Amino acid sequence: MRTTVGIIGAGPAGLLLARLLHRAGIDSVVLESRDRAYVEHRHRAGILEQGTVDVLRAAGAGERMDREGLRHDGIELRFARRRHRIDFPALTGGRSVMVYAQTEVCKDLIALQLTEGGPLLFEAQALAVEDAADGRPRIPFRHRGRADVLECDYAVGCDGFWGVARRAFPAALSRVFERTYPYAWLGVLADVAPSHDELVYARHDRGFALLSMRSPSVSRLYLQVPADTDAGRWSEPEIWDELERRLETDDGWRLARGPLTQKSVTPMRSFVHEPMRHGRLFLAGDAAHIVPPTGAKGLNLAVGDVVTLAHALAHEKETGSSDLLDAYSATCLRRVWQAERFSCDMTTLLHSAPDATPFDVRLQQARLERIASSRAAETDLAEAYTGFPLGRRQISAR
Amino acid sequence: MRTTVGIIGAGPAGLLLARLLHRAGIDSVVLESRDRAYVEHRHRAGILEQGTVDVLRAAGAGERMDREGLRHDGIELRFARRRHRIDFPALTGGRSVMVYAQTEVCKDLIALQLTEGGPLLFEAQALAVEDAADGRPRIPFRHRGRADVLECDYAVGCDGFWGVARRAFPAALSRVFERTYPYAWLGVLADVAPSHDELVYARHDRGFALLSMRSPSVSRLYLQVPADTDAGRWSEPEIWDELERRLETDDGWRLARGPLTQKSVTPMRSFVHEPMRHGRLFLAGDAAHIVPPTGAKGLNLAVGDVVTLAHALAHEKETGSSDLLDAYSATCLRRVWQAERFSCDMTTLLHSAPDATPFDVRLQQARLERIASSRAAETDLAEAYTGFPLGRRQISAR
Repeated sequence: MRTTVGIIGAGPAGLLLARLLHRAGIDSVVLESRDRAYVEHRHRAGILEQGTVDVLRAAGAGERMDREGLRHDGIELRFARRRHRIDFPALTGGRSVMVYAQTEVCKDLIALQLTEGGPLLFEAQALAVEDAADGRPRIPFRHRGRADVLECDYAVGCDGFWGVARRAFPAALSRVFERTYPYAWLGVLADVAPSHDELVYARHDRGFALLSMRSPSVSRLYLQVPADTDAGRWSEPEIWDELERRLETDDGWRLARGPLTQKSVTPMRSFVHEPMRHGRLFLAGDAAHIVPPTGAKGLNLAVGDVVTLAHALAHEKETGSSDLLDAYSATCLRRVWQAERFSCDMTTLLHSAPDATPFDVRLQQARLERIASSRAAETDLAEAYTGFPLGRRQISAR
Repeated sequence: MRTTVGIIGAGPAGLLLARLLHRAGIDSVVLESRDRAYVEHRHRAGILEQGTVDVLRAAGAGERMDREGLRHDGIELRFARRRHRIDFPALTGGRSVMVYAQTEVCKDLIALQLTEGGPLLFEAQALAVEDAADGRPRIPFRHRGRADVLECDYAVGCDGFWGVARRAFPAALSRVFERTYPYAWLGVLADVAPSHDELVYARHDRGFALLSMRSPSVSRLYLQVPADTDAGRWSEPEIWDELERRLETDDGWRLARGPLTQKSVTPMRSFVHEPMRHGRLFLAGDAAHIVPPTGAKGLNLAVGDVVTLAHALAHEKETGSSDLLDAYSATCLRRVWQAERFSCDMTTLLHSAPDATPFDVRLQQARLERIASSRAAETDLAEAYTGFPLGRRQISAR
């Protein structure tokens, strides 16, 4: 099999990249190790930055998002039994975010790809990336039991943290940066209307809690738990009681309960692999970087990577210049490190570290007070949460 | 001996408090354990926040400061061999800082106090504060070898971290919050015109460096060194070489050298004692809180404390209400914790921690990049550096 751009992984990064390349007249093939049903039901993040929304619309993949997604103009911080709202449009000159699950983004992109895009092979497991350094990359893979090879001009690893693409980087070239956190998130889906119409991020001495939503009738809720927690150990009433405690306010706000339909534990990790390019092999999304979920940046970083890459490949096709491809890693990493910083800061701001000293706790309270009392500090947070703008040229190039 | 307000310590906190009380028609006596020459040559910080400048002027102690002090409208951050200026007035609506050494502030206040204020006793060592909880406080002291007692309506500990006042708080009431840092500052005075007309805060892989000044012809320079450093171990050429390395830029900036006239090591510590009041005993300045010097907040916090206290005492005298005195600790601590947060953040932003991971170093770089590229993040820093405004009523009440 032969194509211009071989893409490993049909998560949002791989699917959007294929879509953007298709719109730019560049061939691609997507290899996805799982089957379609699995990919379409993999639950992940659901906060789309303004720039991500813009890109999906410009790529012709925004129709259902605009119909079913929930535009959010702010979030609420809760601490010391008080509530403080961050007003995104007022602080950022009109920017907001969209609550629309990653799963739904994937469904929309898969439908488009199968209708009008290049090949998208499910149950096609990439085994390695070969010859990326100095020749045309080769991706041997196994498709429903049959061995094959995808030959391409460029290979892109959108295959997540555990994928094969990153392993094709020579050890001498790779630098890894990471931090682990001594806590995780116990997440639940509940069949009940969300008790607040915007996300609520709560700092409490007992630990962090987050109230989010999947739709106007489905709540998504999270509790900070120790890193090695078994979700099965938490009963439904225990989860609601603990959420209630951590989200409690002095003004009589009430948490509505409903049946839980899903329960799982998400680990927390910060991870960056540098560089994001080796010869003709590029990494995008979780294959290159992981953020803790507190800043809602994972999906949006992946979108930033593939927008940058699609633009660079289109530029190379149009002008013959590899300038933008050469700059890919540095361009992405600037944005990646800002998201890593923000995600780490939001995590530290809101979670109770088991080894926190009384001094650390007071600092955490002082940080929250600062955000609640300074327009500058609030704006800093709002800008990062709604996302740093992608270059106008990058979006319009679609 | 008998007075309304017994003040322990003739540092800037005690001296300014005596001055403010004098202007409000309230008697005080200041006990200082050292002699006058010592107090007038004790070298400390030299950055006065806008609010501190305003208070000194309003207290009639601003004349020489306005003549000899250097108004600074910004600082420079240096990192990755680049320079980024923070423009205070542009970011804060006209606020700036004044470079005028704490020693000089003390000289001015001592001269005023001796001319027109109440008693200021040098070589008068307070031994304890007694009966503060439920009666009139008594301060036994030793003045040039003679034992005496100062009886007062209120006692104020402006006697620094090692003073006796804090020890009069019952252990069950006291809460201590602290952090130590694994590094210190090696500070030097040099007889050479400063190589830059504003302060330069440099982050370097080899450690932090600070270029500051005492006057247009005297430079004050600092190097991050390990916590247990003996200043004698650093030779003059070694100090200059190291400063040059850490302050180096890509645009040809040069560091001018000159003879060193002083050399000392400053430890780094964050410390807060809560509460700041016990009955009729109040703590102000370093007696209640210490900040690492990176944020230039120590002197300014002391000024904030005594302005709040003088205002509360005047209010009590005028109205008979102890409301503001009762609120003293909470009022000061809000400001104190913001300064602790800022001082800790500036320290972490700019110093090389010996146990920093590669991830930590990248985060530090990302934070500096953020400040250099976001007006909101820059404003947050500029507001904190120039100082949070003191209440207008507090200043005009003088």
